[in-house]
Amino acid sequence: MARGRAHTTIDYDLFELGDFPLASGELLRDAKLAYKTHGTLASDGGNAVVFPTAYGGTHADNEWLIAPGKALDPARWFVVCPNLFGAGLSSSPSNAAVPQDGPRFPHVTVYDNIAAQHRLLTEKLGVTKLALAVGFSMGAQQTFHWGAAYPEMVARIAPFCGSARTSEHNIVFLDGAKAALEGGGTRVLGAYWAGWGLSQTFYREERWREMGAASRDAFVNEFYIESFAEGNPDNLLAMMWTWRHADVGAHPRYDGDTFAALRAIRARAIVLPSKTDLYFPPEDSEIEVRHLPNAELRVIPSVYGHAAGGGVNPEASAFIDAAIVDLLAHEAQAT
Amino acid sequence: MARGRAHTTIDYDLFELGDFPLASGELLRDAKLAYKTHGTLASDGGNAVVFPTAYGGTHADNEWLIAPGKALDPARWFVVCPNLFGAGLSSSPSNAAVPQDGPRFPHVTVYDNIAAQHRLLTEKLGVTKLALAVGFSMGAQQTFHWGAAYPEMVARIAPFCGSARTSEHNIVFLDGAKAALEGGGTRVLGAYWAGWGLSQTFYREERWREMGAASRDAFVNEFYIESFAEGNPDNLLAMMWTWRHADVGAHPRYDGDTFAALRAIRARAIVLPSKTDLYFPPEDSEIEVRHLPNAELRVIPSVYGHAAGGGVNPEASAFIDAAIVDLLAHEAQAT
Repeated sequence: MARGRAHTTIDYDLFELGDFPLASGELLRDAKLAYKTHGTLASDGGNAVVFPTAYGGTHADNEWLIAPGKALDPARWFVVCPNLFGAGLSSSPSNAAVPQDGPRFPHVTVYDNIAAQHRLLTEKLGVTKLALAVGFSMGAQQTFHWGAAYPEMVARIAPFCGSARTSEHNIVFLDGAKAALEGGGTRVLGAYWAGWGLSQTFYREERWREMGAASRDAFVNEFYIESFAEGNPDNLLAMMWTWRHADVGAHPRYDGDTFAALRAIRARAIVLPSKTDLYFPPEDSEIEVRHLPNAELRVIPSVYGHAAGGGVNPEASAFIDAAIVDLLAHEAQAT
Repeated sequence: MARGRAHTTIDYDLFELGDFPLASGELLRDAKLAYKTHGTLASDGGNAVVFPTAYGGTHADNEWLIAPGKALDPARWFVVCPNLFGAGLSSSPSNAAVPQDGPRFPHVTVYDNIAAQHRLLTEKLGVTKLALAVGFSMGAQQTFHWGAAYPEMVARIAPFCGSARTSEHNIVFLDGAKAALEGGGTRVLGAYWAGWGLSQTFYREERWREMGAASRDAFVNEFYIESFAEGNPDNLLAMMWTWRHADVGAHPRYDGDTFAALRAIRARAIVLPSKTDLYFPPEDSEIEVRHLPNAELRVIPSVYGHAAGGGVNPEASAFIDAAIVDLLAHEAQAT
């Protein structure tokens, strides 16, 4: 979710993947993964964390969880934040060369992202096991895919405000978003998103005051309309395709069976939906947790809707942070 | 809500209001109210019911509740269904004469609609008291306004899937709808609405099968995209304005005080939100009921979201019908 942040200088590294094979059979030419690391890999390799990014965000949007005194203290953990394909820093419609530029950028799945991240971790960063995969929204989807793609490698997952498979209603929501973007442009997409991104109670209680907005309209304008207006439409559509087709079952090993993929995840999991999330509602997480062998459901008791996972509300952020502390305190499963 | 119904011949009467004064101070020139009646007014005038229409609908969309054996049996009740201004049959952008045609159609409030309906009932139909005001969605909003505008005249109200005041989140939802319509046209508006009109569970459980759709996409296409595509954009915008500004407090007697207006309603009420309604959520009705002197909250236990009130699901329809039976069985309040 775009969140109306002021622009800051963004520093990151690029990992060159070369011509990268996609699940579709196409090659993503001269593919690059943008990433940032925090902390240092321990000599036993036991402190690595992958923290992929969310729709419309970058690694910088993850940093509210990475700080001294937080669960992901860089003095203790080696945190790798790879950027989603399509988000503008990793290979994306906005930066790809002809003939894969703009609307010709190929369809990239969540598993394609995971495969590229796996190469970054193993080939470049020397990471062979993950203490944790953690993420928000599409980042949460990636954590489930990490657990299903590499069950032996991932000790824990902490997905928040996201699902292992994009739900039926979420697809309808995304198809509406696509229609809004294609039919009306990025500002219409921002207006589309404003009602979905937060809860009815957030608006009823005028919680935008807590976020420093002067009025409801100013909030919608700053955090949604102007924020999305800065986006590249082809990038937004590319990531939307990835999201719409997210499914842990969409892997050769699982042959489309979402629940089989969930059952194969060996990681200890704490799954954190927001109680008031309108497009990743807690019911979807409840259903998925039933199929995860080693999982706890912890609903974030927030009125911030989906944005509860976006680092914008201190109470919700503290709840997520505490869950990650608890999860990391558990011994890793014998694998 | 437009509901993808096959076109049928629509028969109705027109009541001529002349140049009709609006709350804004403007005159709606040569104003007309389209309406249909069912049954016969009793000699004591005690069996009159007003049943206003919803967004994008006509009186024909109310008829699932009006039938022998239903709460609103025309053998017993005299049911008047006036059409909302802007919906295409009563005065609307699509049928108004220059200079009030199309986008120049004046802003009409819910109270303007109620005042016109009051004239229809009293001047034309001989109705001086109402046993019941009942309605769905914007129709529900009108029932609250009926109760607040004419407390002595309205014995009972049964609003379902609607509110006395359009909530903050509902306004954000409507502003997004307006952006979708103005930026992308009626088909984009249909895609916008599809995620809001039904619940996450409706889509998860593929309840569209119960509605005869062959697939999720076929459902969205038929009931939303194609349905809205038939609409007149100026009409849709005019009704949207009315909805966005709905507030029982917006009356000279209440001077903007919504809760004072609710407290002034003398009608016995059963307020029927749908448990899964995404834009008229039950919490809003709970809050309003606390301020109604003589009201019961009865949440429709449906996964059909807002559409639970649209007559498309037999269980939800039966629940609403039973509530109206109960309400009508109560003696009218002494007024």
